[in-house]
Amino acid sequence: MAKAPVLTPQSDDFPRWYQDLINKAELADNGPVRGTMVVRPYGYSLWERMQSEMDDRIKRAGADNAYFPLFIPQSYLSREAEHVEGFSPELAVVTHAGGKDLEEPVVVRPTSETIINEYFSKWVQSYRDLPLLINQWANVVRWELRPRVFLRTTEFLWQEGHTAHATFEDARDYAAKIHREAYEDFMVNVLALSVVPGRKTKAERFAGAINTLTCEAMMRDGKALQMGTSHELGQNFAKAFDTQYLAKDGSREHVWQTSWGSSTRMVGGLIMGHGDDNGLRVPPRLAPIQAVVVAIKEDEGVLAEIKAIADRLSAAGVRVRVDDRTDTPFGRRAVDWELKGVPLRIELGPRDLAEGQAVVARRIPGGKSPVSFEKLTETVLAALEEDQETLLRESRERRESHTADVATVEEALEASATGWARIPWATLGVEGEKQLAAQAVTVRCLVREDGGVPESDDEPGAIAVVGRSY
Amino acid sequence: MAKAPVLTPQSDDFPRWYQDLINKAELADNGPVRGTMVVRPYGYSLWERMQSEMDDRIKRAGADNAYFPLFIPQSYLSREAEHVEGFSPELAVVTHAGGKDLEEPVVVRPTSETIINEYFSKWVQSYRDLPLLINQWANVVRWELRPRVFLRTTEFLWQEGHTAHATFEDARDYAAKIHREAYEDFMVNVLALSVVPGRKTKAERFAGAINTLTCEAMMRDGKALQMGTSHELGQNFAKAFDTQYLAKDGSREHVWQTSWGSSTRMVGGLIMGHGDDNGLRVPPRLAPIQAVVVAIKEDEGVLAEIKAIADRLSAAGVRVRVDDRTDTPFGRRAVDWELKGVPLRIELGPRDLAEGQAVVARRIPGGKSPVSFEKLTETVLAALEEDQETLLRESRERRESHTADVATVEEALEASATGWARIPWATLGVEGEKQLAAQAVTVRCLVREDGGVPESDDEPGAIAVVGRSY
Repeated sequence: MAKAPVLTPQSDDFPRWYQDLINKAELADNGPVRGTMVVRPYGYSLWERMQSEMDDRIKRAGADNAYFPLFIPQSYLSREAEHVEGFSPELAVVTHAGGKDLEEPVVVRPTSETIINEYFSKWVQSYRDLPLLINQWANVVRWELRPRVFLRTTEFLWQEGHTAHATFEDARDYAAKIHREAYEDFMVNVLALSVVPGRKTKAERFAGAINTLTCEAMMRDGKALQMGTSHELGQNFAKAFDTQYLAKDGSREHVWQTSWGSSTRMVGGLIMGHGDDNGLRVPPRLAPIQAVVVAIKEDEGVLAEIKAIADRLSAAGVRVRVDDRTDTPFGRRAVDWELKGVPLRIELGPRDLAEGQAVVARRIPGGKSPVSFEKLTETVLAALEEDQETLLRESRERRESHTADVATVEEALEASATGWARIPWATLGVEGEKQLAAQAVTVRCLVREDGGVPESDDEPGAIAVVGRSY
Repeated sequence: MAKAPVLTPQSDDFPRWYQDLINKAELADNGPVRGTMVVRPYGYSLWERMQSEMDDRIKRAGADNAYFPLFIPQSYLSREAEHVEGFSPELAVVTHAGGKDLEEPVVVRPTSETIINEYFSKWVQSYRDLPLLINQWANVVRWELRPRVFLRTTEFLWQEGHTAHATFEDARDYAAKIHREAYEDFMVNVLALSVVPGRKTKAERFAGAINTLTCEAMMRDGKALQMGTSHELGQNFAKAFDTQYLAKDGSREHVWQTSWGSSTRMVGGLIMGHGDDNGLRVPPRLAPIQAVVVAIKEDEGVLAEIKAIADRLSAAGVRVRVDDRTDTPFGRRAVDWELKGVPLRIELGPRDLAEGQAVVARRIPGGKSPVSFEKLTETVLAALEEDQETLLRESRERRESHTADVATVEEALEASATGWARIPWATLGVEGEKQLAAQAVTVRCLVREDGGVPESDDEPGAIAVVGRSY
């Protein structure tokens, strides 16, 4: 079916396509204060599904949710030198409250390491209190100079985990556990994005960390998006906030810590990782609506049958929605469900009803075909499985076909025009990294040849994955 | 078993008991910025259960979740005259961000009517877009002069619903639906608090509303806590933000609106509504941990059996936790679970194991008795049902026995020393309300004799429920 394009084609102008999609699929609006966003109901339902899947994984990893205040005394941030240097330029400051100027201004949290450590230092007394594993779902504020909806907003929603451990090894292992079992597992198996797990170089580390692990996803324009990071903080914050514990041997030791975060930026990754010229494509395991059952036109029998179909699908565990808005033209509704990326559209009109069948339109591979009512549930379940695999395979193939193994900085820059380059870190080094940075190309992460994560920057054989990024 | 009191007894000093319980049950700490709070993991798990139950009810009522920005341009608040007058004294203002002074200061949301209406005015075009039913889970900030943890904090967590309707009647009915089907149902059937649903007098209404509905709960000291409110906003915000729709007849009309909120204050209501001198008592339907299975001491067979018991209970749908921290004395752990108000404690030692039984200690009615392993699951399920009913019955009986029907302002003041008074609104009136207010006694709500909610302040037969409040 020939259609006038509803979105600017990706190949014409990718950033414009992105913004068009966000508007037309009703995912988000810009907020009134520069760089803020309004997450509209459908966009928020994507985030709620992300939260639910991530929260399960975080709880399975043993962390408990808690909540720390939005407002942090300005003096807290100054206690860890690299941390304050990293975040100072982005802070929003409350100077006036309750009708008066404040004696000490308070900052709106850009992240919560400092305020959480203030409490960890009270709560942790002995080795029995360790590990202390805390997560919080919250909003944070970082004043952005070049905001873009979902990707870089002044206020965003995220989870931030903060943990304290008795030993370096335990902290290191926990940061790695979250990196693999919460982040990578969710991104690959739910978001269907073939992310590369790796280690950040010193230049790219979180402000105050001794190591940052990352999951990097390739977007459909070949650029990278950092999807979630997990940090080893060493004893930096423990020393700044004097977070000590009494060890079994009676000595007092500073704790070893981690922090880790993932945010509404993942919604941007979902859009740019899977969307096409007709809109979003949502992987079935994430999809808040996996199948929509659409009445083509007003008809008593049709309206009864779409509800019956929806009930059967729902009983089979499918997240299903009924579309009985027959006062809106069918074509417009079909385009809307395509824009929103709902994997399956089950269409029913009076003639279909008479023939005992519905038409199943598939967003991910495309195409539509009639399916008898008896076979419908089984067809839907099989299609959802298949679509999940298809999106992950496409993501992996795109990344692999747009990643070049190179041997020089020049070749790395060339490859970064359309995708990523892999170059031995021993060849690139800190100097090469600076040369790339001058062209807005960065080392996304260091990886091992076997897909593992190097234990240090100078591990022999480490490979730098480089590219342009959001 | 005689115990030294772990908490200040309620009868000695109720506010001190409240603060003791919050500290010792590890529910929350005071934040570093005056009036803020840190919600600790166990306290947060209570809130998460509240969120989950409320979110289900809100979604069943047809509202979708969304997210609006934390920062609101100062000018937005001024557009609705009563609203700005009500909230101005409590605002926190960001004047400085990203290293610069802001051209227009932004306020940290105290509630979101204004910013949400700015977007409703863009999203609502025709009658087809109505009703528009939105809810958001968020943090809000109101600078508090007399903060108290959970009850009145500078920052708190809540849900705020915002809706737009085509007619006055539809908005009125939706405010009432949320009041009854979301708030009252949750508070009575999950929180086990026998709340009184009613209508606020003009003096007690939300700033900018034409009507406020409330659920009022009696705390164990006889004072009232407002647990959740649902407002009819009329067309006040619609006119201030020019939120209009095209009606079926082609005319342009302002929408009619509602807003409604419930917050972490409900955690305070849970504590003061059910807690006793040994700590919290959590109603089973709310409880994040309904039963804890405790190893009395280190023993291989005991440790294996408590896990087996927990698995059986979990399979029967019980929210269960294993306590195998045998390096902490049993007595200390028992006191801790009492403080935390977990309904059932299932204790197992080597002798119990040999006898094929566990001891079930019941937090709500008190007492403990041995139960054979075969009968354990059935006993637990029955006890949880019974405990839920017991707490609701106690709450209702306490409220009824501490509420006096009176005929004069003097009698109302007298009754308010230990509980509530009911007085005909025709007798009390606005003048009487002022006399009460001079003694810090307020009209909590207006009700009908039959338990219904009056449709106007001057409905004949309306009764004022008055008392002291938090």
